Amino acid sequence: MYDIIIIGGGAAGMSAAVYAMRGGMKTLLLEKLSCGGQAANTYEVDNYPGFYDNPSGPELMEAFEKHAEKFGVEIKSEAVREIINADGPVKTVKTRRNTYETKTIILATGANPKKLGAEGETELAGAGVSYCATCDGPFFKGEDTVVIGGGNTAFEDALYLAGFCEHVFIMNRSKRFRASKTLVDKAAANPKITIYTDMVADRFEGAGKLERIIARNTETGEQGFINAAGVIIAIGITPDNAVAKSCGVELCERGFVKTDMYLATNVPGIFAAGDCRVSPLRQIVTAAADGAVAAASAINYVLKG
Amino acid sequence: MYDIIIIGGGAAGMSAAVYAMRGGMKTLLLEKLSCGGQAANTYEVDNYPGFYDNPSGPELMEAFEKHAEKFGVEIKSEAVREIINADGPVKTVKTRRNTYETKTIILATGANPKKLGAEGETELAGAGVSYCATCDGPFFKGEDTVVIGGGNTAFEDALYLAGFCEHVFIMNRSKRFRASKTLVDKAAANPKITIYTDMVADRFEGAGKLERIIARNTETGEQGFINAAGVIIAIGITPDNAVAKSCGVELCERGFVKTDMYLATNVPGIFAAGDCRVSPLRQIVTAAADGAVAAASAINYVLKG
Repeated sequence: MYDIIIIGGGAAGMSAAVYAMRGGMKTLLLEKLSCGGQAANTYEVDNYPGFYDNPSGPELMEAFEKHAEKFGVEIKSEAVREIINADGPVKTVKTRRNTYETKTIILATGANPKKLGAEGETELAGAGVSYCATCDGPFFKGEDTVVIGGGNTAFEDALYLAGFCEHVFIMNRSKRFRASKTLVDKAAANPKITIYTDMVADRFEGAGKLERIIARNTETGEQGFINAAGVIIAIGITPDNAVAKSCGVELCERGFVKTDMYLATNVPGIFAAGDCRVSPLRQIVTAAADGAVAAASAINYVLKG
Repeated sequence: MYDIIIIGGGAAGMSAAVYAMRGGMKTLLLEKLSCGGQAANTYEVDNYPGFYDNPSGPELMEAFEKHAEKFGVEIKSEAVREIINADGPVKTVKTRRNTYETKTIILATGANPKKLGAEGETELAGAGVSYCATCDGPFFKGEDTVVIGGGNTAFEDALYLAGFCEHVFIMNRSKRFRASKTLVDKAAANPKITIYTDMVADRFEGAGKLERIIARNTETGEQGFINAAGVIIAIGITPDNAVAKSCGVELCERGFVKTDMYLATNVPGIFAAGDCRVSPLRQIVTAAADGAVAAASAINYVLKG
């Protein structure tokens, strides 16, 4: 019987493991792939406070893993299929091969940015193709940059980038924007921002790093290109919430787990941390802080239980 | 005219500086002493995720400062006296010598644990004498440990420590506890916890690190001692909220700044991060995450303003 089972081995899950183990909890971390989460796919991280030397994502996540392992956390590579008796004092976590019992669960299953599916997108990811303006935008300082999308995030990203990029192009596949009128007007009035409508990206090109985007007008079919050092693909983010759903945990309309300030969900003994929860900002440092808070809350729950 | 003025150079303020500077904001960080905050007084930090090698508090805070300086943030050693026009589009920050104008402010002024004022307390701080069970408790694994205080935090700390310490003694100055009855009953029922009432600590003793606590019964005046490797002084925490008060920012009944999920206060353009705000857990990593969120929110405010 475990005190805490952490589901997901990204920044949130590994930070939760550090706090849970230091707190003397019998803890199991279940990760379906290898640890590291989204950050492990990141070329360079220059905003995790304290690591001022631009570690690569895998390097930083290795440091997280060493940290969790230093305290002896048990890590297993197994995908969680479902949770039974989620609201009971003894919760059952089922993977394909095994069944585990635990007093509390921390959901740290993460989220994934939606992909365009354009040619060259995978090859140039982390080399000019990015899904997070706050994370990677500053790498494109002084350069021409493209934002793909038409929602609030895309427009906020464009305004953000316009502060330090040479020029920002917004590419939206239709004439309609999901973004608020205020944001669209603000971007339209900014001399450093150009908005293209009815435009999709067919291909990302460049030798080792992004140099140009081959784009197509969806009405005329005409193809052209934009030279750019960076592109932020801001068409949405999908939480990995299958396990959360099997617990009966309350989700927001976009599918993220709802929590209170202590990162407790509506189900007693189930907590959520990192990108899978409703959150104001999704960064490595916010995931790490979430892990700490969720573990502290789970420890408290176990001790008072 | 600054885009963002950050008040306070602890983990929260320096993390906010990293995010603000990366976001292209004209940023000033004002710190009344030297940067580092409470963490700089910490002997050893083994729970800031990624730094698995137990840096000292000053070492970790130097890394934060280097990180902020790498992006060219302007740091001045000046104490803020008051803020004028806090709710206007141009806010005025006054120090003794200077007056600065800014569009937004991030309050990262921190908090301080209350001191007992006992003999040896300052000398042995960080060497057995601690004010944070989550931070330092695990250093006392397998040892006898004392918790001083009678509130919820003291009892939660004792239950936490009982999970991995040899024995835990709670010392409370009166017969009454501010802690909830549930917590007191839970601690009283735990064979690893002993509760002493009418007891105060007169002196902390030890050669280089804590070895024993000289305690006194406040009713009988009798003195005795408890051998212990660690003591957690859990008698409260005082936020540094003088500047917040001068802004008209809403505080909780304990004096911490109230924020929403985006770390916005009730005053437009004023944000709060780290220990000075109402928060579920006060750790270096939570302060760092707060800095990131507050900076992202301030950037958004400036861009849409």
